[in-house]
Amino acid sequence: MPQADLEHRLHSSWNKNANAWTKAVRDGLIPSRRVATDAAILEVLMALRPRRVLDVGCGEGWLTRALVAQGIETFGVDGSPALVQHAQAAGSGRFCTLTYEAIIKEPSQLDGPYDLVVCNFSLLGETIVPLLAVLGTVLSSNGHLVVQTVHPWSACGDQAYTDGWRTESFMNFGNDTWEPMPWYFRTLNSWLTVCNQARLQVCQCIEPLDPITQHPLSLIIVSRVEAFATPDADERGAA
Amino acid sequence: MPQADLEHRLHSSWNKNANAWTKAVRDGLIPSRRVATDAAILEVLMALRPRRVLDVGCGEGWLTRALVAQGIETFGVDGSPALVQHAQAAGSGRFCTLTYEAIIKEPSQLDGPYDLVVCNFSLLGETIVPLLAVLGTVLSSNGHLVVQTVHPWSACGDQAYTDGWRTESFMNFGNDTWEPMPWYFRTLNSWLTVCNQARLQVCQCIEPLDPITQHPLSLIIVSRVEAFATPDADERGAA
Repeated sequence: MPQADLEHRLHSSWNKNANAWTKAVRDGLIPSRRVATDAAILEVLMALRPRRVLDVGCGEGWLTRALVAQGIETFGVDGSPALVQHAQAAGSGRFCTLTYEAIIKEPSQLDGPYDLVVCNFSLLGETIVPLLAVLGTVLSSNGHLVVQTVHPWSACGDQAYTDGWRTESFMNFGNDTWEPMPWYFRTLNSWLTVCNQARLQVCQCIEPLDPITQHPLSLIIVSRVEAFATPDADERGAA
Repeated sequence: MPQADLEHRLHSSWNKNANAWTKAVRDGLIPSRRVATDAAILEVLMALRPRRVLDVGCGEGWLTRALVAQGIETFGVDGSPALVQHAQAAGSGRFCTLTYEAIIKEPSQLDGPYDLVVCNFSLLGETIVPLLAVLGTVLSSNGHLVVQTVHPWSACGDQAYTDGWRTESFMNFGNDTWEPMPWYFRTLNSWLTVCNQARLQVCQCIEPLDPITQHPLSLIIVSRVEAFATPDADERGAA
């Protein structure tokens, strides 16, 4: 299937799955989130002591609400109107429907600057450098961009460890009827390369563990805008 | 066992295993090196177009010789006199016995600057930040430090994915009698943290694959000295 069709299916799956997803998140039906990754992203964000946060791909809004509960001004944006409706209905936090295409086209809609931008399991497509680069422009000078994603090594399974489109069936996410979602698997190398291409300098990679297996459940990449980034910055890079 | 004893055993194992190791490398008895990691490190180094290379922990000298064969001035150093003897006996390249402690104490012995410093499976101890920091000081301004190590995910196996001392028995490395070697397992997070502490900025992480399983066999970290590094650089870092 061509990339454009996969990206379209990815986008539309979030509207189709909005009710089931909201229930899964709010009822704690996703074990990895319950036992590790929700607490891990909050811990990383709070340690950066942000004052103003942008939550990109906020979904039904749990992370935005968790930050607001800590007294942090947070703006949640998501490309799915159905999910944003759920977020707005939940009470606290400021939310807006904005697709990634709309963000790239008109970054001023993000109402920056922010000292922290977070993408929590929300970078699922193949072409993400333009979005990351734009998010870098709404960061304040010492700001950080934090991405949480599936751990490439755990997510790889028995398949080849190479970038490519895969399918999430949501089989273990409760009994609702789910629309399968195409998503783009990235190796560690690929994640660091897209950060580099977006002029983001990786400061840290944190690997939250499953408390039982002691194997990594996710990867949290903390980055900041490259110091003295210039248009020819890639010339300075490695092979 | 206390860390000092483990570091001592690690160091002395290389003298005890020098003959068996030299045979294993030269007869191609280490499958991962034969099918992937030897070619991978050479490819990464050559793509950086170095003129002058320091090969730290050069062992019996194969990588130094491979670079010299490409017309690149290369200096190989290793803490094991027995391995350096094997390297010198093989003919081409310049070699010297220098322990990591000696390098840290007197970096001028390295005869820098170099535009490329490589540690190919040679950072096996627990305390490596002082060595990495000193290696950064012998790099020219646009120089790179390249580290190849076992891939944290593949090397983890069924054990907990946490830093700690492990034992290499060399069981699959030919029929010679081997002295078991203690070595320090590091997670990806730990590798990036030590680079950060040594004021090295990670440019790239390359993950050479096993051609059969298509799973990563090693991790190659390409770094350079942090631009405008200052003594309080860690204050700028992440959580």
